[in-house]
Amino acid sequence: MGVFQQTANLYLGLVHYPIYDKQKEVVATAVTNFDIHDIARCARTYGLGGFFVITPLESQIQLVERIIRHWVEGAGSSYNPTRKESLSLVQISRSIDETERTLADLWKKRVKRIATGASPHPQCIGFGPLRKILEDRETPFLILFGTGWGLTQEVKDDSDYVLAPIEGKGYNHLSVRSAVAIILDRLLGQDL
Amino acid sequence: MGVFQQTANLYLGLVHYPIYDKQKEVVATAVTNFDIHDIARCARTYGLGGFFVITPLESQIQLVERIIRHWVEGAGSSYNPTRKESLSLVQISRSIDETERTLADLWKKRVKRIATGASPHPQCIGFGPLRKILEDRETPFLILFGTGWGLTQEVKDDSDYVLAPIEGKGYNHLSVRSAVAIILDRLLGQDL
Repeated sequence: MGVFQQTANLYLGLVHYPIYDKQKEVVATAVTNFDIHDIARCARTYGLGGFFVITPLESQIQLVERIIRHWVEGAGSSYNPTRKESLSLVQISRSIDETERTLADLWKKRVKRIATGASPHPQCIGFGPLRKILEDRETPFLILFGTGWGLTQEVKDDSDYVLAPIEGKGYNHLSVRSAVAIILDRLLGQDL
Repeated sequence: MGVFQQTANLYLGLVHYPIYDKQKEVVATAVTNFDIHDIARCARTYGLGGFFVITPLESQIQLVERIIRHWVEGAGSSYNPTRKESLSLVQISRSIDETERTLADLWKKRVKRIATGASPHPQCIGFGPLRKILEDRETPFLILFGTGWGLTQEVKDDSDYVLAPIEGKGYNHLSVRSAVAIILDRLLGQDL
C-alpha cells in the first residue's frame, strides 16, 4: 500500500462516488483497471505526491488492493519494476473528506481542493493561473477527477478552484485517463 | 468503417507491428480495446484527419472491425453517439506502408512521417518546432505511436521527424494512451 510523503504538494483523487451517471443521477461507479495503471504512471511521471482512488464500495476497495498488491509486492513487481514505482503512489480512500483529512494530517494544514470537468463553470480558473498557484510548495493541493459523467455540482461548489475544461474542436468527451494526462502536463510539464 | 477526408493534415497511426517487446525482439502486439476508444476520442478532440490501427494480424483486424461496427452502426451508436463520432475516425491498415499509400492517394502527395518514443533520438525535433511545421496545411503528416516497448529503430530511421520524448521526473513509462493525449495537446492544443 502506498505510503505518502510530502515529496510534492499536488495529490490526485479519482472519484467513484459521488458521481453523475448518464441521466445525471448521483451514483457510485466501478473501478477500471486501466484508470489505475494509466493515472498512476502519469502521477509518477509528473512527480505527484500521491494518487487516491476514492470509492466507498467494499468490493471495489478489495479489487484495488489486489491490483496494487500484485504490482507492488507480488509477481508483477519483478516482472515490471516500473509498475511497482508508479503503483506505489496509489492509496485507497473511502471519500473525498477522508482524503482531505489524510492530507491535512500529513501537512498540518488545510488542503486546497481543485475540481475538474468537461463543462465550463462560471468561476473557473485557467491552466496558466493555476500553474502559478501550484508553485506555493507549502500548501497541499488535491486535484479531483470524476469517473462516469463527472463530479457533482456540490463537489465543484465546495472546491477552492474549478479548472477550466480542455477545449476540443467542438467535442469534449475525452476519457478520464486522457484528461488526467493532458491536465497534469499543462500544470506541471516542462516548458516547450 | 471510417471514411477519410482531407479535413485536417495530421493523421495518427497506432502501430502493432513492427514493435519491440520487453526483450527488444520485433513482434506483433495484440490490440487493446481501451487504446482504440481513448485515442479515437483524442483524435476527435484535436480535429485529426483520421486514426489508423495498424496490424497485419487477421484476428486483430476482425476484433477492431467488430468494435468499430458496434459503436458506429450497432447498439452503441444510439447508446452513446459521442463514441460514434470518435470511432468514425478509426480505420484499419495492415502496415505502415499501406497507411502511407492510402494517405498519399488521398492527398496526391508524399506523406511526411513523424515517429514518437520514450527514449531520446540523436536527430529529434522539439514540440514547438514540430507544431510550427504542422501549420503547413498542404502536406499530410502521419504521426506514429508504438505499442509494446515501442517503434523499431528502422521505423524511426525511415521517418521524416522523430519527436522528442515527453520528459518526466526521472520516469518515462507512460501508457501509449497517455502519451497520445499529451503529445496531441502539445502539438495542436490551444495556447493557455
